[in-house]
Amino acid sequence: MAMTRRLLLLAGTALSAALLFNPQKSPLISSLGFAILAFISTYTLIPLLGDAFIKAGFKGKDLNKLGTPVIPETMGAVTAFVYLACMLLFIPFAFYHHFAALTSGGGNREVEIEIHPADEGFFHPFPHNKLGEYLSAILSLQSMIMLGVADDLFDIRWRHKLFMPLLAAIPILAVYYVDFGVTHVVVPMQLRQWLGDLVDLGWLYYAYMAALTIFCTNSINILAGVNGIEAGQSLIIALFVVGNDIPYLVKPLHPAHDSHLLSLYFMAPFVGVTLGLLKWNWFPARVFVGDTYCYFAGMTFAVVGILGHFSKTLLLFFIPQILNFLYSSPQLFGIVENPRHRLPRLNPKTGKLEQSRVKFTKTPKGMTVLLLELLQKLGMVTIVHGEKGEIVEATNLTIINLILVRLGPMREDILALTIMGVQVLCCSLGLLIRYNFAYLIYEWDHGRKIC
Amino acid sequence: MAMTRRLLLLAGTALSAALLFNPQKSPLISSLGFAILAFISTYTLIPLLGDAFIKAGFKGKDLNKLGTPVIPETMGAVTAFVYLACMLLFIPFAFYHHFAALTSGGGNREVEIEIHPADEGFFHPFPHNKLGEYLSAILSLQSMIMLGVADDLFDIRWRHKLFMPLLAAIPILAVYYVDFGVTHVVVPMQLRQWLGDLVDLGWLYYAYMAALTIFCTNSINILAGVNGIEAGQSLIIALFVVGNDIPYLVKPLHPAHDSHLLSLYFMAPFVGVTLGLLKWNWFPARVFVGDTYCYFAGMTFAVVGILGHFSKTLLLFFIPQILNFLYSSPQLFGIVENPRHRLPRLNPKTGKLEQSRVKFTKTPKGMTVLLLELLQKLGMVTIVHGEKGEIVEATNLTIINLILVRLGPMREDILALTIMGVQVLCCSLGLLIRYNFAYLIYEWDHGRKIC
Repeated sequence: MAMTRRLLLLAGTALSAALLFNPQKSPLISSLGFAILAFISTYTLIPLLGDAFIKAGFKGKDLNKLGTPVIPETMGAVTAFVYLACMLLFIPFAFYHHFAALTSGGGNREVEIEIHPADEGFFHPFPHNKLGEYLSAILSLQSMIMLGVADDLFDIRWRHKLFMPLLAAIPILAVYYVDFGVTHVVVPMQLRQWLGDLVDLGWLYYAYMAALTIFCTNSINILAGVNGIEAGQSLIIALFVVGNDIPYLVKPLHPAHDSHLLSLYFMAPFVGVTLGLLKWNWFPARVFVGDTYCYFAGMTFAVVGILGHFSKTLLLFFIPQILNFLYSSPQLFGIVENPRHRLPRLNPKTGKLEQSRVKFTKTPKGMTVLLLELLQKLGMVTIVHGEKGEIVEATNLTIINLILVRLGPMREDILALTIMGVQVLCCSLGLLIRYNFAYLIYEWDHGRKIC
Repeated sequence: MAMTRRLLLLAGTALSAALLFNPQKSPLISSLGFAILAFISTYTLIPLLGDAFIKAGFKGKDLNKLGTPVIPETMGAVTAFVYLACMLLFIPFAFYHHFAALTSGGGNREVEIEIHPADEGFFHPFPHNKLGEYLSAILSLQSMIMLGVADDLFDIRWRHKLFMPLLAAIPILAVYYVDFGVTHVVVPMQLRQWLGDLVDLGWLYYAYMAALTIFCTNSINILAGVNGIEAGQSLIIALFVVGNDIPYLVKPLHPAHDSHLLSLYFMAPFVGVTLGLLKWNWFPARVFVGDTYCYFAGMTFAVVGILGHFSKTLLLFFIPQILNFLYSSPQLFGIVENPRHRLPRLNPKTGKLEQSRVKFTKTPKGMTVLLLELLQKLGMVTIVHGEKGEIVEATNLTIINLILVRLGPMREDILALTIMGVQVLCCSLGLLIRYNFAYLIYEWDHGRKIC
């Protein structure tokens, strides 16, 4: 068995090398090679580094297993490191044809011995803007990953960490400003008689993009706590982004071709590392992913959504996260008491996970009671009443618990699969909305439309 | 006293804000504002975060103090984070005039609603190459910092960590290739009859730049172990780099103007954070800087040396580090036994530091004995002989110990000042060589010469 696995890994490495150095020197094929390499590296490194992580203090108890075993935490850092290394090593491959054009005399670098480098470059045939986009994307991602590791190390406060993505987003926002600067949005047809065809949102558009990075990074982080779901949901979203990219790639003249190619360069190795991580994070988890992974995944999506000009489509792939955020908001904003952990809890007798409930330290009153009773009527929470009829317990408001309320207790892996199933359904719905109903509010085709 | 300090910090913050938002919108003045902000932030954050660092396992014993107190380690990470945050926030300031030109119609962005962003940018007046250089520099730096933190967390093996800078250097090397691609070097006059005026080193030049990053990052890391000297030597080097930049800044038409401006943008906040760190790392140290700081400092120098085209001048500022490396090499390469620590040791009676010696576990023979005896004749080591005349102990081969051998025991802060004094002398010598003797081997003036 171990032998077969080793042979498979070897074969995978060989395949990856063959793709990397493909004779056509196609960056797209090289990118697939990096995706395989990323998978193999993550898959191999995680078990090797587990002990070192535990020794360095990155460890956590798996509360939903008998005996609450201690396993390595923050393995998303390994995942993210492998990803960043792949993206750095990919640079020469991504720009190979442009590099080659420079060397073969296609550029004006030959005369640079006479003129100083500082004076040229403005009318250079090399796509500096593309390299800038690529570098800024890695830089934003890496900044977010560093902040993620810092959070895992130091447990940064909620109100501080909510805003960490803003700092990390500066590079891509700067490059967006320089390269595109498009802050006009197309007005839905129904509103055009008042607003006109286009509205220039100006700095509000940058605020929107910054908010997108905050949302993407934090929304994955709050749909968490069950083995495999952070990486699982991210995998599904990534596959849908890839699925949305592919149709554009076969049309090299399509105006959105390059944006979706860039998106694929970032998504392919992401799928690779996520699969490698999922192998060890799936039930029963041998490692935890840490906040680092959630920030890393969320920021990767935000970056490709912004630089690939499909942030609205991206949001359609985040429907479960949006719903989870809305459903969670009474607890997040303190209307309903928020305990330290909201993850479902194991019933040791059945081996199944059951909904977790918040035990109120202060009896809920007024609006809180109204809200909880409304949710109960909709079948969205279960409530435990005390002797005097007061509310003493209520389901924690996460869609994970909601699934358990509606479908009853289930084993942890079945729960994870169910959530991933919900993600697939919602992403499919998103695609359907994007390609079939968008004409109801926008008449333009993608590519001409600014989205 | 605390009140005075608080008022000073407040005044500093106000000054910093005034410089940041200077009415001329000069990036250079804003950069000075960031330098002050960087100092204040580092100075304020380090004591605040000490406990959190100790709790997260970042702690070390100060072996050269009575009672070997435990203090926070890896505070270079805070320093580097503040630096990176400043460099990210500086982006809009650095490119303000270009950004403004875009918005006021100087660019061609207005027509971008009709044409797709992917099709333009090639002949765009915005200096994409400059933004690319800036972003690649931060990216390389940040990659190195991440690897530094990983090293501090996991104690990466020597042979692995020696090569970490190679990965981190990819972004700047890629941008160097694209923007300059100059791999010709000017041949010293004495060799021209054989080699011609210029020699194209080709990929060897990239190997040279990669080697430079390895050297800069590791050489600061091995001239370490006394309170304040990692930050101290870096401060002196940085000040000399700044000193070397300034003459070019007053000549806006000088071909090397832009390179030195870029260098100053990176050096000014570096001086700020390093001063803030030095306040707490100076004898008696309240915090340690960690490998992270050494990598961060070394990579900052390497990056500005490469992108600023003054890597040879930079190496002249690294004379003490080069000498220390050469002097250390018998121990680094295993010719003389290398103990775990080579830092000088405290004599508790005098309160002064004395040279540390390696106690040989295997009696030195052959070449090792010859080498040690030669060094002893030159007054560069002291040797302790055993009963049979064999060598049982010898000074550890670092220039820190060498200073103690030559000048006798001294207090830790006097030792740190002495090393900084040596650094000042060597850097001054470097400047002298650069500007007075370079004509002996090169006839060209800086700027026209490719260096």
